[in-house]
Amino acid sequence: MDAYLDYQSAKPVDLRVIGAITPYFYDKFGNPSSLHKIGDEATKVLEESRQTIANFINAEKDEIIFTSGATESNNLAIIGFALRNKEKGNHIIISEIEHISIHNIAKYLVKNGFDVSKVPVDQYGRVNLSKIKERINGKTFLISVGYANNEIGTIQKISDIGKLCKEYNIVFHSDAVAAEGLIPIDVKKDNIGLLTLSSNDIYGPKGLGILFVRKGIRLSPIIIGGGQERGLRSGSENITGIVAMAKATEIIEKEMDKEVKRFKVYQDKIIKNILSKIPRSYLNGHPTERLANNVHFRFEGIEGEALLLSLKDKGISVSTGSACTSKTLEPSHTLISLGLLHEEAHGSLEITFGRFTKKEDIDLIIKVLPEVVEKLRNISPLYK
Amino acid sequence: MDAYLDYQSAKPVDLRVIGAITPYFYDKFGNPSSLHKIGDEATKVLEESRQTIANFINAEKDEIIFTSGATESNNLAIIGFALRNKEKGNHIIISEIEHISIHNIAKYLVKNGFDVSKVPVDQYGRVNLSKIKERINGKTFLISVGYANNEIGTIQKISDIGKLCKEYNIVFHSDAVAAEGLIPIDVKKDNIGLLTLSSNDIYGPKGLGILFVRKGIRLSPIIIGGGQERGLRSGSENITGIVAMAKATEIIEKEMDKEVKRFKVYQDKIIKNILSKIPRSYLNGHPTERLANNVHFRFEGIEGEALLLSLKDKGISVSTGSACTSKTLEPSHTLISLGLLHEEAHGSLEITFGRFTKKEDIDLIIKVLPEVVEKLRNISPLYK
Repeated sequence: MDAYLDYQSAKPVDLRVIGAITPYFYDKFGNPSSLHKIGDEATKVLEESRQTIANFINAEKDEIIFTSGATESNNLAIIGFALRNKEKGNHIIISEIEHISIHNIAKYLVKNGFDVSKVPVDQYGRVNLSKIKERINGKTFLISVGYANNEIGTIQKISDIGKLCKEYNIVFHSDAVAAEGLIPIDVKKDNIGLLTLSSNDIYGPKGLGILFVRKGIRLSPIIIGGGQERGLRSGSENITGIVAMAKATEIIEKEMDKEVKRFKVYQDKIIKNILSKIPRSYLNGHPTERLANNVHFRFEGIEGEALLLSLKDKGISVSTGSACTSKTLEPSHTLISLGLLHEEAHGSLEITFGRFTKKEDIDLIIKVLPEVVEKLRNISPLYK
Repeated sequence: MDAYLDYQSAKPVDLRVIGAITPYFYDKFGNPSSLHKIGDEATKVLEESRQTIANFINAEKDEIIFTSGATESNNLAIIGFALRNKEKGNHIIISEIEHISIHNIAKYLVKNGFDVSKVPVDQYGRVNLSKIKERINGKTFLISVGYANNEIGTIQKISDIGKLCKEYNIVFHSDAVAAEGLIPIDVKKDNIGLLTLSSNDIYGPKGLGILFVRKGIRLSPIIIGGGQERGLRSGSENITGIVAMAKATEIIEKEMDKEVKRFKVYQDKIIKNILSKIPRSYLNGHPTERLANNVHFRFEGIEGEALLLSLKDKGISVSTGSACTSKTLEPSHTLISLGLLHEEAHGSLEITFGRFTKKEDIDLIIKVLPEVVEKLRNISPLYK
């Protein structure tokens, strides 16, 4: 039996979501810009979907901008903000363990004359508030810290960062794709100005995301055209994608508590079993302040790639790091930021589960992983 | 019975396409960046889909970049080209009747120090080659002319423009969304360097498009991140969208000839009947060199909006212009470019049909349109 334990890289779409969008493919396929009946219907469902997603994060309907996904949302948030608010500052602070899209956006902005500081994290992957504070200067106008890390699962002190941003009158952007559906998000309470969400991370299809833009924050568009989404994101609206994300939101709002409880049982079980069964194994990330669906280990004397391929042979899908960088040979920048050596980072394994994970999948990884690690260590010149 | 005759604004998705993508929502949902089985499957289908779409326009597989749609493709093509090739020039030529996204991109580039010339069209909406030639200068590095116009359906002399671009060593971009699936496209034969296509325009879902980028042409990315699509378009690949566009491409390749023949019968029938039944009615666009699924009329003494709403009451969906601008009160820039007066542009009606249009839909518009025009003229202070 195959076990898919790489929910961080991609999630299957919930069948209820597919059921909900099917009519929008061929019966209700209108363009919201059209003035006839099928266009009016599209406008209606577009705005209803916007409201559903706004409610999920305690935002207003008009604060939700639909995009093609999290990467685009991050681009719009950070590049869009920087280019539009040059008179207010030129300095951005991000954490060292941000998603690669944020790092590459930062590089782009530095090339274009902006100043970017990176805040280190502690051994568990948490950003220290005082280290952010140290980096704030009179030109700081944006701080971007992910809600939780997509690799090691560490959750940040979002409320505290929000407060700090409020105090210094700095806009706070958070990429929340790893956290969404696992932690309740409240943009008002936490003073978040810009928030990135993706559809697939809550079991909707890929190719859709949102950027929450708090009223009063001005951005330059990244994609220019017909002026859809209040001019911030042109292009005919992807209505099926939008309806899907709204449906996925409705489902997860109802089921999140129960789902997270189940995940915590799985998480505890894997951590306890693996750390006790495999000698010289360690947990990466925070011991308690971590996403309920995430387990991240490192094993001494093991190559993560070899481990991944051995598990693949046994029908188990896992990850050695962010899917976005796993085809390069570079170690994960997140693991390096925790203070791990290159060989420690390379000996790491990420297990993430989700809505369709069964108890048997968890039992399988607990049974197979110690066997595989032992076998690899036996043939490894690095171990012992 | 309702008749949808606004295929230009949005198209229903072919049920065969939905059938083909369904497994990719929940069985084969992997991330191509993942190294496990389901990731490998995603990589395989991603590259197969790329090949299918490349074949459709006589391109190479590696020349196809997946985007979120035509507007994004146009942004990547024009802004991406301009920013990346500053050492080669700073002057771009577009036609006056380009899609609004191209016009707004041009505005953006002018603000950013580039120079843009607009070529007028003749009374039928055709760009005159000598008028392009007149505008070429030593700094001209890009010419963007749509393959066919999305409103009036006029087809451009693409081969001739391609030859001209070759002669002057200028890159030729064409937004081909209105033409795709109605005219065979050959990027090699016509010396097209950059070509925009969308999935929905060939009965795939919205939220996906491609940009063909001829080998050797360099672009700056618009969306920065994990480096997918050879660094030109970051973000996890929308596999269901991509598979859908490939399936839609396969279908249209087989059925295009037959489909276009049927459309031509519909087109002739509407044009003949309406022009003979309605006095002081005129055809906008080219009498012969026009898309087979497009009919565009103007009626003296008629407000297009009123006509559209009257037809809506009778269950007929049509358009008064591009859906992208139809919610503004501005007359279509395309119609104005033909030399029409504002009131003539406002008195225009666009009828577009497609794969699922039935003979009865055509009969209905032929029956109802003359009645509605007569009724509106009877109450109009403008007429007679």
